[in-house]
Amino acid sequence: MATTDADTEAAEGFEAIIQVDALETLFEAVNTLVDECKINLTDGGLEITAVDPSNVAMVDAELDAAAFEAYQAGGGVIGVNVDRVLDVLSVPDGEELAQLAYDPATRKLVIQAGGFEYTLALIDPETIRQEPDLPDLGLEARLVIDGGQLDRALTAAGIATASSSHKSGHMRLQVDAEAAVCHVVAEGDTDDVDYTFDTGDAIDMTIGPADSMFSLEYWNDVATPIDDDARVSIRIGEEMPARMAYSAIDGRLHLDYMISPRVGQ
Amino acid sequence: MATTDADTEAAEGFEAIIQVDALETLFEAVNTLVDECKINLTDGGLEITAVDPSNVAMVDAELDAAAFEAYQAGGGVIGVNVDRVLDVLSVPDGEELAQLAYDPATRKLVIQAGGFEYTLALIDPETIRQEPDLPDLGLEARLVIDGGQLDRALTAAGIATASSSHKSGHMRLQVDAEAAVCHVVAEGDTDDVDYTFDTGDAIDMTIGPADSMFSLEYWNDVATPIDDDARVSIRIGEEMPARMAYSAIDGRLHLDYMISPRVGQ
Amino acid sequence: MATTDADTEAAEGFEAIIQVDALETLFEAVNTLVDECKINLTDGGLEITAVDPSNVAMVDAELDAAAFEAYQAGGGVIGVNVDRVLDVLSVPDGEELAQLAYDPATRKLVIQAGGFEYTLALIDPETIRQEPDLPDLGLEARLVIDGGQLDRALTAAGIATASSSHKSGHMRLQVDAEAAVCHVVAEGDTDDVDYTFDTGDAIDMTIGPADSMFSLEYWNDVATPIDDDARVSIRIGEEMPARMAYSAIDGRLHLDYMISPRVGQ
Repeated sequence: MATTDADTEAAEGFEAIIQVDALETLFEAVNTLVDECKINLTDGGLEITAVDPSNVAMVDAELDAAAFEAYQAGGGVIGVNVDRVLDVLSVPDGEELAQLAYDPATRKLVIQAGGFEYTLALIDPETIRQEPDLPDLGLEARLVIDGGQLDRALTAAGIATASSSHKSGHMRLQVDAEAAVCHVVAEGDTDDVDYTFDTGDAIDMTIGPADSMFSLEYWNDVATPIDDDARVSIRIGEEMPARMAYSAIDGRLHLDYMISPRVGQ
Repeated sequence: MATTDADTEAAEGFEAIIQVDALETLFEAVNTLVDECKINLTDGGLEITAVDPSNVAMVDAELDAAAFEAYQAGGGVIGVNVDRVLDVLSVPDGEELAQLAYDPATRKLVIQAGGFEYTLALIDPETIRQEPDLPDLGLEARLVIDGGQLDRALTAAGIATASSSHKSGHMRLQVDAEAAVCHVVAEGDTDDVDYTFDTGDAIDMTIGPADSMFSLEYWNDVATPIDDDARVSIRIGEEMPARMAYSAIDGRLHLDYMISPRVGQ
Repeated sequence: MATTDADTEAAEGFEAIIQVDALETLFEAVNTLVDECKINLTDGGLEITAVDPSNVAMVDAELDAAAFEAYQAGGGVIGVNVDRVLDVLSVPDGEELAQLAYDPATRKLVIQAGGFEYTLALIDPETIRQEPDLPDLGLEARLVIDGGQLDRALTAAGIATASSSHKSGHMRLQVDAEAAVCHVVAEGDTDDVDYTFDTGDAIDMTIGPADSMFSLEYWNDVATPIDDDARVSIRIGEEMPARMAYSAIDGRLHLDYMISPRVGQ
């Protein structure tokens, strides 16, 4: 039976203590793409890889063991309902410490904070699709801006595409090597918008060949939880998927997204 | 005619001056259970007793005459639409003084604040059910916590019961005499939660035999207007109604609720 | 063709620089009545006159050239979608400078702020109804109150009329010359409200013959964007339209509304 092999990766016991809002930051980022996910309980920390149901966007999240007050994981994988986990984490204050304990015998995860003890039924990780690693795409162009700038560019793109009635919104990311600028461009039926980042506006910029069109919807999803002052690195190519990465929790949470381009447009 | 006898309790004239937000606090508490209520205009202050339409929860509210700048009541009862009264009170600022005047001839209540004068049609108190006094239940166990703690325990219970699809949420209040703790326990189909108060967490605790199951919905309703730093006293027994009481407006408003247990569960 | 004559008023080039929130204040005021409007690009500033689709209320807005950092207009008229303009203005911060440029050749308005450049398709002004000037109505009674007082009076009127089931809310503005007060009166089926301004409450008051009934809905619309500390001048007569005027942006934006009375009531 397939599950026999799978048992080799069934999770060992797991115990950890961490500030509530660090866990919330992790799961809010993952929740932008999926409602359920697998968590790898590695020596180095928690690792989550997830692809949205339409296969357009993918996230690779790593929360370092160093982000925890105490951390002990014997390896393996557990599956959780992300919405439920976020509900549970909303009960204690963000700065409280939460204690996590996974018992392989009951297949339940106990989340404790103060007198509050929540026993969360886990999801069989076999029922959640295995995701590939994020591919190395050789993207040469790179734009580093803060979360607030990204939010404004996406909002602007959304307004122009709202002037279209017959198609959902698209956004083009384009580097003009000669002018040394990166454009976020969107066109509606009547209006269009160009949000231009030059080397002065951006935190950092690497010029390279880049011109790809994306569905605005996915960028809005993944950008929603990003803090205005987070440093967001965006790598793009020519009709290639984009990679977007940022860190949180003092550099102990690494979030790396891949967003597929629109084709034939 | 029945109304002839009832006339003996028809309200005499009533005049009072009180800060707007004190009245709001009174009616918001009553509004958790009913949309219409009778107000007893007694020498000692305003008294409201009301039972929710399902006969599950009951409130006894007393706003002392000492909470008023001026207070003169000749006895009797008036009926009001609680939602409407709260709308009217939302117009002036909370710290303004409102003047209330009831004229038995017109059966209208005039609410004045600054240049604002609202003439509120009253409801015939005969059309509102007469409620019994809150019974003495001989409840021995008592937990005193602040409003914020109660809110967290109820939120936690709500999350666990959200994992059930086929029944509404229940919550068990249980004292473990040996461990000297009080549990707020909720079970869903897959998850469960236990919010435990020990003598350190609670403001005060009296150990006694207690284990009763309640509908979570009613507790959420009555707890909604409670301030996070209010001191809430909860008395429970074995498969008995619970009593929940707290004070507001510097001890001049007394709110006493009774919530019936779920049976056969 | 009628459009031949109209071409004489087609807009010349237009360029201007102004703080974003000044433009927002202008268009939010106009947006209380219309979704599209014509803008007169005069030497002295921008002028907008608009009537709501039901012909009940009218606004005359003037944003002085002095409100701009730079202003150059060659005359003529352009048509804009007010909702779209407000969306675009929401992208930059309110205190940023926006650069406006109209190119008669493309009939598009480019709005720029920082790296953000939005190209807005304009509406043919011929398709937007030409509005008359605001008439001189010879209104003698005048009440000057602040925006917060107006908001409270309208809220109060709305509560009383909510007690009616069969008609929409009306409000009567009435001067009692003998008592030297101005009443805002509303009557529902059971309740009624009287918000009285005397010479002490009001910032200024001119007694004159005045008693007119209005639809509450239009007053709520036009009052929505008014700041609580704005000085609002209301002029009324006997069964006559009312005029309501206030200034914003340090006196450089003038807003003048006319609201028609209800008749046969």
